[in-house]
Amino acid sequence: MSLEITDRQIMTPGPTMVDPRVSQAASNAILGQFDPAFTQIMNENMDFIRKAFQTKNYWSFPIDGASRAGLEAVINSIVSPGDKVLVPRMGRFGDLAVELATRAGGKVITMDTDWGTVFNQEDIIKKINEVKPKVLAIVHGETSTGRLQPIDKIGAAAKTVGAFTIVDAVASFMGVSIPVDDWELDAVIGGAQKSLSAPAGITPITFNERFADEIKLRKRVEAGVATSESDISENYINSNYLDLTQLMDYWSPARLNHHTESTILNYTLHEALSLAVENEGIFERFNRQIKQQQILKEGLKKLGLKIFGDEDHEMPNMVAVEIPEGVAGDKIRAILLNDYGVEIASSFGPMAGRIWRVGLMGYVAQKHYVLRFLSIFASVLAQNGVKVNTALALNWVTEAYHELEN
Amino acid sequence: MSLEITDRQIMTPGPTMVDPRVSQAASNAILGQFDPAFTQIMNENMDFIRKAFQTKNYWSFPIDGASRAGLEAVINSIVSPGDKVLVPRMGRFGDLAVELATRAGGKVITMDTDWGTVFNQEDIIKKINEVKPKVLAIVHGETSTGRLQPIDKIGAAAKTVGAFTIVDAVASFMGVSIPVDDWELDAVIGGAQKSLSAPAGITPITFNERFADEIKLRKRVEAGVATSESDISENYINSNYLDLTQLMDYWSPARLNHHTESTILNYTLHEALSLAVENEGIFERFNRQIKQQQILKEGLKKLGLKIFGDEDHEMPNMVAVEIPEGVAGDKIRAILLNDYGVEIASSFGPMAGRIWRVGLMGYVAQKHYVLRFLSIFASVLAQNGVKVNTALALNWVTEAYHELEN
Repeated sequence: MSLEITDRQIMTPGPTMVDPRVSQAASNAILGQFDPAFTQIMNENMDFIRKAFQTKNYWSFPIDGASRAGLEAVINSIVSPGDKVLVPRMGRFGDLAVELATRAGGKVITMDTDWGTVFNQEDIIKKINEVKPKVLAIVHGETSTGRLQPIDKIGAAAKTVGAFTIVDAVASFMGVSIPVDDWELDAVIGGAQKSLSAPAGITPITFNERFADEIKLRKRVEAGVATSESDISENYINSNYLDLTQLMDYWSPARLNHHTESTILNYTLHEALSLAVENEGIFERFNRQIKQQQILKEGLKKLGLKIFGDEDHEMPNMVAVEIPEGVAGDKIRAILLNDYGVEIASSFGPMAGRIWRVGLMGYVAQKHYVLRFLSIFASVLAQNGVKVNTALALNWVTEAYHELEN
Repeated sequence: MSLEITDRQIMTPGPTMVDPRVSQAASNAILGQFDPAFTQIMNENMDFIRKAFQTKNYWSFPIDGASRAGLEAVINSIVSPGDKVLVPRMGRFGDLAVELATRAGGKVITMDTDWGTVFNQEDIIKKINEVKPKVLAIVHGETSTGRLQPIDKIGAAAKTVGAFTIVDAVASFMGVSIPVDDWELDAVIGGAQKSLSAPAGITPITFNERFADEIKLRKRVEAGVATSESDISENYINSNYLDLTQLMDYWSPARLNHHTESTILNYTLHEALSLAVENEGIFERFNRQIKQQQILKEGLKKLGLKIFGDEDHEMPNMVAVEIPEGVAGDKIRAILLNDYGVEIASSFGPMAGRIWRVGLMGYVAQKHYVLRFLSIFASVLAQNGVKVNTALALNWVTEAYHELEN
């Protein structure tokens, strides 16, 4: 059965389209995991990840697994049974943080705001001081609602009560500036398959020495590798695969054997980070995405559609559009995908059936993709009885691109 | 920094060389995780995995992570705190089973045999009856010593005391026949980067309904997805990412959102399994590997080297060679890798410095690779003062290939 991959224009909040140069990187031959030719690539990836997170953290490396493997590795390594974990929740990925902290045995305290809004940082800081958690786990880019939570002040505040700040930046990574050191964030998890435009299955993370010192207290050297009783902590991390203290030994000059690192996902990560950090520049990338997002958003408004949520706090790499009254959102999505090969997303929980989510993450944030999408989307809506001002929208967007290019 | 991949002849027990057709599969464009074009590939992968394991198990799918992620998913999902886990241990990967079962909270009972030997199944069965464990976790192909543990009788025996049999077949998968249903094995973990010759980072597993029914008792529907208190088990699995009950919902028509499946590793898995199951045939592959292994082994003997361990129970896809007295094994390996681009492996723990491990897994099990390796290896040994009968060995091997081909 031969593999048949059709051409798709993917405009979801992930997994996203990948630059063909990144895809080609995956087709290289395998290198052994301790081959100096490969460990050099691993080291370069660490350096790229540091640059992407604007951090000096030595501990900047990828986890071999989906984004939630990265989240779980970080949360599971720091949260011991009974530890208090504060989770401000504004959407589905806040729920995920609750879920992961609970599985780690944490005592979870939540605070909530309506889906489509964000928290005032002062409210979070007040709660931090009240609860005095061991860990604050917060989502930066909440794709379920398309909101971007301001987080520049909470890291310092958490530190004053001895708390560690963990940020789920899976969807905001490479979409918006995240100066990890300046914001005093202890551990941050990025995503490969969002604005970095790399294939899913590998997840860049970074954490500081303060975080590292804390999790080292739970270090358990593997059975068969331990040389003394003192190598085995009683309060050890309940995962081996996602135990950051073991991964630190693997991703350091010690190169202690742990798992076999995913060769080709390190290749694609390398190429995608090289394109973002070196070729394009991260600020240029942020700029490109938000410009495309602004144009698409205005185009959708001109069509006659409504944008969902608090526009002052939206993610700059996606648009959440309200599904017009009486329109079957999933039917429109199915037509787009099956007939036109264009994919947009629905959402979760209370948002299901209420919004479409259109991604402008990484590679797809380009003029021709935006124009193709807008014209196809307008046609499909019109064909399905939605009144849209196609000419008005396309005129405006074409003019906007004209200005952008001159 | 552009990605530079040098050419290596990898003859380790993994990660192994990959057929260029498999590498090319990785360079295809991304598909969304719920795109029917992608879920079809997922379904085909399930079917390929069933064929590879000679099983009717519906639950046959890959885990997004290294082999030990597959092992941890299986062990963690079935072992609750306090459960008795019996681990017969004959090498480093037995230690890993101990480690994983311990982290899951299991009460581990081990039995040991000298490294380089295997267990008599009757002894294991006696211990099963004595200990009456909930889980028997055993390694099939123990690459640290190169031994293949017979396991055709233990599954049925374990079942009589209500135990579940878990087999680490990471290194034996696609190297030797594993009729999962006939042998009554409850859960088996294969490897991508061994005899399947696929890139590392994804791990095929299979488990039966008996196993599925047991782990379902621990099912916890994710916070934010759960609709009632009854969706949340008290004795839930401590991982979310590696929770098989959630992965079952993702890898079934329910297609419940969990993580974003690794697109390109599903492509490579598809191509590698298609080549093994359809193009070559699994029994033909087993046959090809053992023939190459027999020839290489005899060639190494003719050179004057000694083969390590019990030859009646060796893995058919690798050779464990004793490092001659006084020879610095790692120095020879470094010369082979750095000067010739040929990689072989050392081993772990008590085997370190005592044996070299030469893999004949999947793609590399071909005449020209064996001949290249043997002549280079002989030359390097000779150059480093080891007395070897190069002409004798190469004459014998050349003649053996002549017979094989006629």
